[in-house]
Amino acid sequence: MPKVSHRSDTVPLSPFRKLIPLADAAKAKGRHVYHLNIGQPDIMTHPRAVERFRKLEWDILEYSPSNGIPSYREALTTYYARFGVDVTADQILVTTGGSEAILFFMLACLDPGDEIIVPEPFYANYNGYAHIADIRVVAITSHIEDGFSLPSPEAFARKITPRTKAIMITSPNNPTGACYSPEEFNTLAEIVKKHDLFLCADEVYREFAYAEGEPLQSILQLPGLEEHAIVIDSVSKRYSATGARVGALVCRNEAILAGVDRFAKLRLSPPGLGQMLSECMLENDEAYLAGVKDDYRNRRDTVYRRLQQMPGVFSYEPGGAFYCFARFPIDNSEDFCRWLLADFEYQGATVMLAPGPGFYATPGLGLDECRIAYVLNVDDLEKAMDCLEKALEVYPGRTTAAQQIASSGSARS
Amino acid sequence: MPKVSHRSDTVPLSPFRKLIPLADAAKAKGRHVYHLNIGQPDIMTHPRAVERFRKLEWDILEYSPSNGIPSYREALTTYYARFGVDVTADQILVTTGGSEAILFFMLACLDPGDEIIVPEPFYANYNGYAHIADIRVVAITSHIEDGFSLPSPEAFARKITPRTKAIMITSPNNPTGACYSPEEFNTLAEIVKKHDLFLCADEVYREFAYAEGEPLQSILQLPGLEEHAIVIDSVSKRYSATGARVGALVCRNEAILAGVDRFAKLRLSPPGLGQMLSECMLENDEAYLAGVKDDYRNRRDTVYRRLQQMPGVFSYEPGGAFYCFARFPIDNSEDFCRWLLADFEYQGATVMLAPGPGFYATPGLGLDECRIAYVLNVDDLEKAMDCLEKALEVYPGRTTAAQQIASSGSARS
Ligand SMILES: Cc1ncc(COP(=O)(O)O)c(C=O)c1O
Ligand SMILES: Cc1ncc(COP(=O)(O)O)c(C=O)c1O
Repeated sequence: MPKVSHRSDTVPLSPFRKLIPLADAAKAKGRHVYHLNIGQPDIMTHPRAVERFRKLEWDILEYSPSNGIPSYREALTTYYARFGVDVTADQILVTTGGSEAILFFMLACLDPGDEIIVPEPFYANYNGYAHIADIRVVAITSHIEDGFSLPSPEAFARKITPRTKAIMITSPNNPTGACYSPEEFNTLAEIVKKHDLFLCADEVYREFAYAEGEPLQSILQLPGLEEHAIVIDSVSKRYSATGARVGALVCRNEAILAGVDRFAKLRLSPPGLGQMLSECMLENDEAYLAGVKDDYRNRRDTVYRRLQQMPGVFSYEPGGAFYCFARFPIDNSEDFCRWLLADFEYQGATVMLAPGPGFYATPGLGLDECRIAYVLNVDDLEKAMDCLEKALEVYPGRTTAAQQIASSGSARS
Repeated sequence: MPKVSHRSDTVPLSPFRKLIPLADAAKAKGRHVYHLNIGQPDIMTHPRAVERFRKLEWDILEYSPSNGIPSYREALTTYYARFGVDVTADQILVTTGGSEAILFFMLACLDPGDEIIVPEPFYANYNGYAHIADIRVVAITSHIEDGFSLPSPEAFARKITPRTKAIMITSPNNPTGACYSPEEFNTLAEIVKKHDLFLCADEVYREFAYAEGEPLQSILQLPGLEEHAIVIDSVSKRYSATGARVGALVCRNEAILAGVDRFAKLRLSPPGLGQMLSECMLENDEAYLAGVKDDYRNRRDTVYRRLQQMPGVFSYEPGGAFYCFARFPIDNSEDFCRWLLADFEYQGATVMLAPGPGFYATPGLGLDECRIAYVLNVDDLEKAMDCLEKALEVYPGRTTAAQQIASSGSARS
């Protein structure tokens, strides 16, 4: 019998998939599981847009141009103009979700064996796309103590080799919820210019940044990065339409656009219905987006307040996305998450979190950290936080304050 | 300025893309262009299915499971059962078009540097996916004189090396329209069993096979290939819904399914709306499919009859898909196709064909061949054939019968 490929055996998969059977088993026992582990929000896809979409007239669902429906790309230029980003429709390539944009960026900018620097913790699927593209992800550690702020230019410089082609960041961040400040973005700009690297920013959570004032919404607002900046975008989270499978790669560098376009031509077309829906969703979306953002901000406030009140839990106010990362007084977050599902229950329920190590490339990091996705309404979040609080009181592997300080010290070294 | 990847510069793109500016220029001059060059049919997507789709109730467009919506996969098992293929829903992985299924097959079954044997002429994008997967396509030539029948087992054996992992075929074929007979399929089965290879069959044109009787509709009907057979499928052509971006990989080998599943998880989900539409299209599709098939058969008959009547043109009756491949009394098909667009007009119109060499991997083959896609209605096809007939009378590079025999002899050697 012929054998499958080695590379299919070694795809780096999301490590918390192993928890799913435990969640299923808990549910089979009649326990309610609050799913704070996933990136699938419970927010309605814009109902008015869905109505418009249903009424669109079409009779042949054709391939769209491989870079996307022209009117949709035009409409996107108006969207980007809202925050001062001036791009033409030809600088936008519509992709099959942000996922495909990530792969296209890697294929177009890096050759096999090339390296990309990514601050950790990071969205674990970057590892998987890098596996397909046969490139190396070089992690640079950021730390919960300072809210996962940008590592220093010196720390970046230490990671740069002759094979380094790009830095990839996510802001607002999954899993940490951190948003880089304008100063941090300027630092990044200096680094990529100095070392002649591409800067790829995954901005799929752009609309969910909760700080007052005028936060930077895109690296495309930074001057002088015309040749360096590549933006990954997606309607998945923005419009709570993950199943549309519509994203975009936005970039002003013509060589990159030409390269990405070649990969896009191969796969013929991004999804047609998803693009039609996305065009409808863009229309008069501001009230919808503001409402969703308020909703997430309330959830963020709920989760952060509750975490602050839990003894021994350390977090920081996450500035964006719909994730919160926290350090818990526990021996091992993977054990803790398993235990929550297998052995714990409070008022007939338990909670599912994503263990920290899955978001780090460096072994041994994140062992006392978990990601909380606030993808449920505030009432459910309060109940989920009740569960978590009770669980931390009785978890057999809980650690004392002294142990915690010792372990957090060793994680930094 | 950082440089894009070498691999993005070397993506093997469809060679007839260069003709598009010429077609645009012809249209700008007011000339009508009959597009017989593309795989986008003018057939309506099943109207009743579209109506059902519009009325589906949903409020959050969520990621579907990464292997597809369970009810859709269930419905597909009933579809495959129609022609005696017994597969479970778990042996079907829904993909983003047949395109993604091709890439997933290559990634899951072959490692970088491995080889896949493909009879030429073949669908040119296989080269592109092989480029991404970093595998080698080894072409084995089939010939127009015998209707592009399967090369002999000895010819296959000569191409097999220690790196050969799979044979990939397309039946019904793009670009030739040829369908392998049950005997040819048996031969293929013997070859892959003898040499321990995977057999991947791209069956996206399955429903369009015009011979009477009970043609083989899938390699999954062949006994003894449980571990070897991988089928690429798609709703694109079957339901004239290319923009849905819904395909499938179907396979009974658990190791392959597990490998493919890992790549599928990375990209999270195939398109949600496209899957919903596809499920609607499957319902009561038999009358629709029969109608579409009749339509294409009439078109095939028209094109084939007209080609038969043109002096010096050689073709064979293509058994399926919506393509016809023919040999013309011309010096160079790329020049001919350019000339048709740039310099020819008959009754205010001209015709766009796909030159043969783009479908061969072996340099120098297909120089007097073109692919005709019968994606227009019979009236338009007649007019397009009028153009072609007149063009062949006046084309400056036309060859005599004697020259043709000489050149076809050299192409075989
Ligand atoms: C940071 C980040 N980037 C990209 C994606 C990919 O999303 P999609 O392919 O649905 O656009 C996700 C999904 O969770 C994400 O969290
Ligand atoms: C032989 C063959 N396979 C696969 C495809 C890919 O089609 P899709 O990705 O739309 O399913 C095509 C499209 O023309 C084709 O001709």
